[in-house]
Amino acid sequence: METKDRIIHSAIKLFNQKGTKSVTTNHIAAAAGISPGNLYYHFRNKEAIIRAVFDRIVEFTETGSSYGSGFRVKPSIENMEAVFMRVLTLHWKYRFLYREFNALLNRDKDLKAAIIRDQKRRLTEIRYSILAFIEAGIFRDMDESEIEFLKTSLWIIGTYWHSYLESGGKKITIARVEEGIDMMRKLLRPYMNETVVVPD
Amino acid sequence: METKDRIIHSAIKLFNQKGTKSVTTNHIAAAAGISPGNLYYHFRNKEAIIRAVFDRIVEFTETGSSYGSGFRVKPSIENMEAVFMRVLTLHWKYRFLYREFNALLNRDKDLKAAIIRDQKRRLTEIRYSILAFIEAGIFRDMDESEIEFLKTSLWIIGTYWHSYLESGGKKITIARVEEGIDMMRKLLRPYMNETVVVPD
Repeated sequence: METKDRIIHSAIKLFNQKGTKSVTTNHIAAAAGISPGNLYYHFRNKEAIIRAVFDRIVEFTETGSSYGSGFRVKPSIENMEAVFMRVLTLHWKYRFLYREFNALLNRDKDLKAAIIRDQKRRLTEIRYSILAFIEAGIFRDMDESEIEFLKTSLWIIGTYWHSYLESGGKKITIARVEEGIDMMRKLLRPYMNETVVVPD
Repeated sequence: METKDRIIHSAIKLFNQKGTKSVTTNHIAAAAGISPGNLYYHFRNKEAIIRAVFDRIVEFTETGSSYGSGFRVKPSIENMEAVFMRVLTLHWKYRFLYREFNALLNRDKDLKAAIIRDQKRRLTEIRYSILAFIEAGIFRDMDESEIEFLKTSLWIIGTYWHSYLESGGKKITIARVEEGIDMMRKLLRPYMNETVVVPD
C-alpha cells in the first residue's frame, strides 16, 4: 500500500474506534508505521486527513453501482436492495464520519462545502431513481411532494441509521444493517404498485 | 436566574454557536459573568454541563404535553402536530447536542447511559401513541412490523431533521421546522383512515 493510503487506512480505523477528537496525527503516524514528519509530508493536519476520507466516500459513491447508475441500468427490486446494502455498508465502514457529521462540518469550511455538494448530488440521484421506478411501473404515480418526501426520508434514514442504533445502545451487526434495509423497504411499500412482489 | 441556570443557559448558547469542542469552561464562566472557581463549584467539568443540559431535555420531554401524555389526553391530528412542533423546536433549541449526538455519547459513558435510557422511553411512548391512534380510528389497523417501522422512522426523522438541513447547507428557519412536521405528516399518511381530514 502507498504511504498515503496507509495513513488514511490507519486514520479510519482509529477514528472509528475513538472518535476524531482523541486521535492525533502522531497516533495516526504510529499506527501507519511512519514518522510524524512523513505524515506531514502527505497531510497538513488531521482535518486534511478527514477531508481525504470524505473524498474517498464521494469517489466510491460516484463510481460503479452508485445510487444513480445502478438504477439507470435496470430499475428492479433486486437492484434497489443492492444499493441500500451498499450505502449502509459504506456508512458503517466510515461510521466515525456519520457519527460526527454535523460537528465536523461545523469545524471545517472545506469539508462543509464538500458535504453540501455531495448531499445535493446524491439527493438529485435519488430523485432520478424514483422517477425511473415510476416509469418502470414498480412505483405508482406520485405527485411532486410525495417524491420529495421519499427522497428526503430515504436519505435521512440511510445517513443516520447507524447513529440511531448506537444511541439506542445497540451493538451493530450485519443483521442490524439488514434492519436498515428493511426500514427503507417499508418506507417505499405504500408507493409500490400492488403487482410488484416485495421480499419480506 | 440562579447561578446554575445562568451557567447552563450560557453554555447552550456557546455550544450552539461554536460546538462543544472549541468552548471551554472558562468561556462559559465569562459568558455567565462568574469566576471559573464559581463554575467549578457547580460543575466539575464541561461534560457535567452537557449532562445537565441533557437532563433538562429529558425533564422537559417527560412533563407537560410530551409524546405520551399529549396523546393520552386525546388522539387527534391537532395534538399530533403540536407534539411534532414541540419536538422539533426542542431539537432546534439544543441543536449542538443533536449535531454532536453520537460523538458526545462515545466520549462520556454517563451521558451515553442517559441517552440510551431516554431513547428507550421515548420509543415506547411513540409506540403507545400509535396504538392510541389506531384505537381512535385515526390510523388504520397495522401489523407489528408496520408499528415498529413508523415508530423508528418518526424518531429518526425527528432527531436528525436539523442535522439533515445543516448538512445540506440550509439556513434553519421556522418554515424549515414546519417542513420537518410535513415530513412526519407524509410518513403517516398511508396509515391513516381515509375519513380522516389531514391538513395540507
